[in-house]
Amino acid sequence: MFDMQVSEIQQLQLEVKHQKQHNNHNQDTPMCQKKIQIQDEKKVIVEGDDFLVPPLNFAMVDNGIFRSGFPKPDNFSFLQTLRLRSIIYLCPEPYPETNLEFLNSNKIKLYQFGIEGHKEPFVNIPEDTIREALKVLLDVRNHPLIIHCKRGKHRTGCLVGCYRKLQKWCLSSVFDEYQRFAAAKARVSDQRFCLALE
Amino acid sequence: MFDMQVSEIQQLQLEVKHQKQHNNHNQDTPMCQKKIQIQDEKKVIVEGDDFLVPPLNFAMVDNGIFRSGFPKPDNFSFLQTLRLRSIIYLCPEPYPETNLEFLNSNKIKLYQFGIEGHKEPFVNIPEDTIREALKVLLDVRNHPLIIHCKRGKHRTGCLVGCYRKLQKWCLSSVFDEYQRFAAAKARVSDQRFCLALE
Repeated sequence: MFDMQVSEIQQLQLEVKHQKQHNNHNQDTPMCQKKIQIQDEKKVIVEGDDFLVPPLNFAMVDNGIFRSGFPKPDNFSFLQTLRLRSIIYLCPEPYPETNLEFLNSNKIKLYQFGIEGHKEPFVNIPEDTIREALKVLLDVRNHPLIIHCKRGKHRTGCLVGCYRKLQKWCLSSVFDEYQRFAAAKARVSDQRFCLALE
Repeated sequence: MFDMQVSEIQQLQLEVKHQKQHNNHNQDTPMCQKKIQIQDEKKVIVEGDDFLVPPLNFAMVDNGIFRSGFPKPDNFSFLQTLRLRSIIYLCPEPYPETNLEFLNSNKIKLYQFGIEGHKEPFVNIPEDTIREALKVLLDVRNHPLIIHCKRGKHRTGCLVGCYRKLQKWCLSSVFDEYQRFAAAKARVSDQRFCLALE
């Protein structure tokens, strides 16, 4: 094991502190662009711009299918590595101009299926909307693609859950995956929808 | 939206109850093998054996790379769909006979890199062991492969974290992914190791 020197411990404390800040999902912190180098036999944090920043709650779902929260400009370099053909966007709000420019520059097609968020205790996940989104998702001509809403938890989780059911996943495993992203905010209504979609 | 009938609500309550039981990670519950059919205009839960049960904490890491907790016989059908060439096994305990038979039947090669678990507050993740595991992981001739330990959280999370660093992921995103699986039990030592591996 490496011996931890005083400076490394201080850096670790910085990293942990940054990590806690990062949990507020503000990915504009400079730490993401820094890297650790050895200088004078000590590890120091220096500037660097060659690190990739995946969007919030990013994950791979299957070959050619990804999921995440809303991508920001800091995430564009990372998204380029995915060589996306399409984006499935599940919010009703218009797509931001900056993101549209990124899509145009990279010849990425936008498929928008607006689903309202934040209507507790029940969220009406419209059946027709999800069916149309599934059609786009299942068409390999649209791959690679990324599914995203705002935080990549509930609306995205619901579409991915329907995809898993088509993959014949045991319902409990569908829920497990859903909750890994939705955590304590797992919505019964989303689960009811997937159940109803049987 | 579908109208929820009394029987559906009862079934949903069964599902939710099962889900809570399932969080104890006992995947031998019969619910995994049941499916919902329409009988007499009502949805009922019937027997069915064509559902797939991913292992505990299963996820895709990258093309040809998966991660999970320890696979059990109930998971073998699912694992067959992945067409695995290799398994990277990170526990020191001998591989169970049943699992070895599954590997032999499916011509899957086992790569074992034993790392002791559960040594709090610090876990010595041996550097050489992780390096050797990484070599196997990075060699595409071994893909598709699955990385697993016991619960697919810490040892697996550490190896995946090192992989992400090689992919130039921002350190915060590496931690975010690690914590999605390790949840409240995220170990500072695992994070220190990844930091030290820089």
